[in-house]
Order: sequence, then structure tokens, then C-alpha cells
Amino acid sequence: MPPTDSSLNITQTKFLLGTAEREMLTGHHGLVVWMTGLSGAGKSSIAVGLDHHLNRQRHLSYILDGDNLRSGLCMDLSFSEQDRSENIRRAGEVAKLMAEAGLIVICALISPFAMDRKKVRESCDKSAVPFMEVFINAPLEVCEQRDPKKLYQRARAGSIPGFTGIDSPYEAPVNPEVELRTDLHSLDDCIRHLAANITKRTALEG
Amino acid sequence: MPPTDSSLNITQTKFLLGTAEREMLTGHHGLVVWMTGLSGAGKSSIAVGLDHHLNRQRHLSYILDGDNLRSGLCMDLSFSEQDRSENIRRAGEVAKLMAEAGLIVICALISPFAMDRKKVRESCDKSAVPFMEVFINAPLEVCEQRDPKKLYQRARAGSIPGFTGIDSPYEAPVNPEVELRTDLHSLDDCIRHLAANITKRTALEG
Repeated sequence: MPPTDSSLNITQTKFLLGTAEREMLTGHHGLVVWMTGLSGAGKSSIAVGLDHHLNRQRHLSYILDGDNLRSGLCMDLSFSEQDRSENIRRAGEVAKLMAEAGLIVICALISPFAMDRKKVRESCDKSAVPFMEVFINAPLEVCEQRDPKKLYQRARAGSIPGFTGIDSPYEAPVNPEVELRTDLHSLDDCIRHLAANITKRTALEG
Repeated sequence: MPPTDSSLNITQTKFLLGTAEREMLTGHHGLVVWMTGLSGAGKSSIAVGLDHHLNRQRHLSYILDGDNLRSGLCMDLSFSEQDRSENIRRAGEVAKLMAEAGLIVICALISPFAMDRKKVRESCDKSAVPFMEVFINAPLEVCEQRDPKKLYQRARAGSIPGFTGIDSPYEAPVNPEVELRTDLHSLDDCIRHLAANITKRTALEG
């Protein structure tokens, strides 16, 4: 039975609890923090540091890291353009659910295509889940010099076709909520700046 | 590039925080509560009531409902046997992530095949995420009589091929952590019994 037919058999289950009641327990709003940027720009490092920083401030956060998802929820997906979009879609859906549960969800995925990121934002908007795009920005030359996972080296050698920044485009955010230049500022400064922005956004009123 | 080749390009990101530090904030362990049973057995009703009950006890929970996932994370999946397995796999992966974040994750999915449920349990075990299987049990005749979504009626009429309990098997859990006979006990009693079991399991030591 194709999905279109089977949608007849689906009845949405309505919860007794709204997000507000869950947030009473966490003490803050849920939020999707979507970090996008080139490989080596510093997404994962900032995610891990931010997660720790927020925990020390008694904010309940969790990291959805692109690499980690690839060995779990998205392990069936390849790196074709279609599967990369599906990868982003799934990460976005999970982030939305976790934010509805009251968490600050730190997403760290290259997510090179503006359209894929836009769809996640729209999906969050539709469910009234706060979403912020964070551009983790460092010039390609810097990222390639850092090359923490030696991926640029291998991509230049032709062994990773379709690598973002080399032979596949990275579409930088035009109007991100936050931009962090990791080549100009220290990791700690980036984390502190982002955390301050997040705690302001997630503060419960009154 | 097929997933097997691309696994070379994946580096697991290690978090600074462990589950223990997240649980310090929620005040309890994370847990995957996996409710399985026939359509109409009462999974969604118990899930919604349990979620509410736990919230009143200041336990942070969230519901992953099969029907709801079908219009989000799993909207690309059909009801073929293969896609039903993939549906369970994805729900299991998300539940695991949420439990790692410190939540009590209430999963309500028919999940008729023992092998699919076993895989979710094993995946949780592998990540040291507590998992409990809850058999929401009512005889087929009772479920068919209740028929809250008129699905049995339509399945009997032949318009929903592969419907669990009618022309597709339901493999009942052999050794579930909890079994609730919803034909013999009230909804409230079932919820209270399950909630007591859960709060005992998720209590932090000391």
C-alpha cells in the first residue's frame, strides 16, 4: 500500500500535555539550534562545548550530530544528493520532537543546501517550535588547513566525490540568527556568545 | 556512494556530557517505555494518560506515537512489511536518543513483529539505555468491538490489506516487563500501575 493511500488509516493522537507543561519542568523553552557550516568549521566542537555550558546553567540540551546520526537513525542513507536531503529532513523532524519535549536541541550538520535548511525551519514554524540558524563560518582555506578528519586531503585526492566545498557547493545562510567566525574568535568566545543568545531566547516569561 | 563505502568518512563525535549529567537536571533516569499491542488495545490512551501522570510527578516524558510519526519522521514509509520494520527501527532510534537526553520516552506503536521489537531492545542495550516492553493486551474480539478508528470494519471489508490481527499476524511479547489487560482493568488503573513501575525504575540512586 503506498503512503498516499495509507494516510487514510492514520489518526493523529492528541496529547493532554502541551509544550508549556513540559517546559515547567525544564525551566526553559525548547529550541532547535541549527548549526550549519563547512566540514572543519567547528560545528561539532562548538556543539559539545555548548552542550556542556548549558548543562552547567541547568539547561537541558542534547546534541544531534550529523556524523553520529549517520551510524544510527540515518545509517541507511548514502551521500547522494537525495539521501543528503533525507538526512537533513530526518534530523529536523527529530530535533522538532525533542524541542517539543522541552529540550534545547543542538544540531550540528554541514547541511550545505539552503532549501533543505529552509524546509526544517518551515516544519518547525508549522509546529510552533522555535528555530534558530547558526552559521559556523570559517573560510574554506582555513577549514582545509585544519582538516581535523583528513577529509579534505582525501577529497582533493578524489577519493570522496561530492565533498562539500571541493566538488559540491556550500550555500551559506543569507540571514542566520547568529554567525560565528571561528577563524577570528576563540572556541570559548564562540560558545559563550551563542549560549548567551540561546538562554535569552529560551527564558520563560515572568 | 553506498553507505558501506561512506562509513569511512564518518567520525563519531564524543560528547563532554554523559547521561548522568543530563539526569541530574531531570531528576530521574531516562527510559524507553515500548508499548506494543493490537490497534484498539489502548496504547495511545494509556500513553497520553501516562504522559500527563508523569508530568504531575515532575517526570519529564514525551510520547512517540506511531500514527503521529507517520505524518512526520516516517511520512515516506508505506505499510509494506519492510517499511513497517523501518518505521519501528526509526522510532527505536529516536526513542534511544531521547532517553539518552534524560527523558522517559513513551512509545506507542502496534509493532507486531517480535524481531523488530527485539532489535530496538538490543540497540538500546548496546547504548546502555534502559528499555522496557509493555504489552497492552486485549483480545482481538474486544479491540474489534471497540474499533475506535473504524479500522477493523474497513479491514474486514478488504480495504486495508495487511491489517494486524485480521490478515497480518500480531506476535505477542513472550516475556514483557509489564503486561496490562485493558479489557479487565480500567484505563486509570492501568496508567497508575505502569507509572508506579516506571518511577521505581527511573529513580536516581541515593
